[in-house]
Amino acid sequence: MRYHKIPDETVRRLPIYLRGLLLLLEKAQENISSQNLADILGVNPWQIRKDFSYFGDFGVPGVGYDVKKLIKHINKILRLDVGHKAALVGAGNLGSAVLAYPGFKIYGFDITAAFDNDPQKIGRKINKIVVEDVSNIGILRMRNIDLGIIAVPITAAQETADALVKAGIKGILNFSPCYITVPKKVKVITIDIAMDLARMPYYMSSR
Amino acid sequence: MRYHKIPDETVRRLPIYLRGLLLLLEKAQENISSQNLADILGVNPWQIRKDFSYFGDFGVPGVGYDVKKLIKHINKILRLDVGHKAALVGAGNLGSAVLAYPGFKIYGFDITAAFDNDPQKIGRKINKIVVEDVSNIGILRMRNIDLGIIAVPITAAQETADALVKAGIKGILNFSPCYITVPKKVKVITIDIAMDLARMPYYMSSR
Repeated sequence: MRYHKIPDETVRRLPIYLRGLLLLLEKAQENISSQNLADILGVNPWQIRKDFSYFGDFGVPGVGYDVKKLIKHINKILRLDVGHKAALVGAGNLGSAVLAYPGFKIYGFDITAAFDNDPQKIGRKINKIVVEDVSNIGILRMRNIDLGIIAVPITAAQETADALVKAGIKGILNFSPCYITVPKKVKVITIDIAMDLARMPYYMSSR
Repeated sequence: MRYHKIPDETVRRLPIYLRGLLLLLEKAQENISSQNLADILGVNPWQIRKDFSYFGDFGVPGVGYDVKKLIKHINKILRLDVGHKAALVGAGNLGSAVLAYPGFKIYGFDITAAFDNDPQKIGRKINKIVVEDVSNIGILRMRNIDLGIIAVPITAAQETADALVKAGIKGILNFSPCYITVPKKVKVITIDIAMDLARMPYYMSSR
């Protein structure tokens, strides 16, 4: 089943809802109203109802949404139900933090490879992953890895992206605060932590 | 001047536009059309025009937007024009990566303090900042620091947030993948890097 016409902004919010719902599941809560889910996540309840309406309404008046069903449904829409293997490039401080990050597993992601060009780092084990020589990055194709995570200095970001694309990667999570150019068929999501901080003062001073 | 009724989603996008405009400024480009800006940033041109319309229209037909003016205006709206000092708590891999991150300065942020509870880390210098004992976090109040960055393990996130709030911090950038509870007057932005990755497969498989 394919879902069409879901706006990007809704797709961006679905993982937020999913995270909240997974926390509820952990606490064995079976149902939740859009209002309560909104309170937990700090979003608007009408936004939740509108977002869920794009793929059909699962809420029962007076009872709310079925937590398990909703998780299953969002996982399917986001295609997280199949599991994805990822490779990290850049095993410095940020890369090491990414490898140790506990949050990937809950969305079905598994970082199964790490690469660097520093001989001091190659062969080292970080969180059970042995760092490999980046010049061997082509082997990704044989390992069924379709996601790449870039945690290299800005100056090396574009060549890293090129190498990942050449190795058959379909999606790139880019931590270098710069734009990288890839073929249209490859999806890039750039995380600029400073940019998230940049919207903070707006809210700080409006209180 | 205060700008009211700017939707959260627009506030979230303004730093994205700002980053693109700053890149244009670097290249000495004076004007840009919404279409060209959209192409660079990978967003919709109508979205840009709609977002800019919330605070008045600066575009000139056939010429486009004045890059410098627009930067100044967005900086003012986001209250980035005054500059903000930030303190980091947690000087592990992620914290060290944050301290070394080159992107904060361009938005007027300055990380001027770092704290940890590990005696091995206290006193060490990371990117010109000496790591201090977290039990002294109360001194933030005297140093004119109004932003806190949490990069501690999940289990220590809430107590760290409590300590930051007690020290007078008004905004928290939280890297621990968990919810933290703070008084309403304090703004929290949680960065969950796995959540950003979670929307990738949706786009990967729809191509």
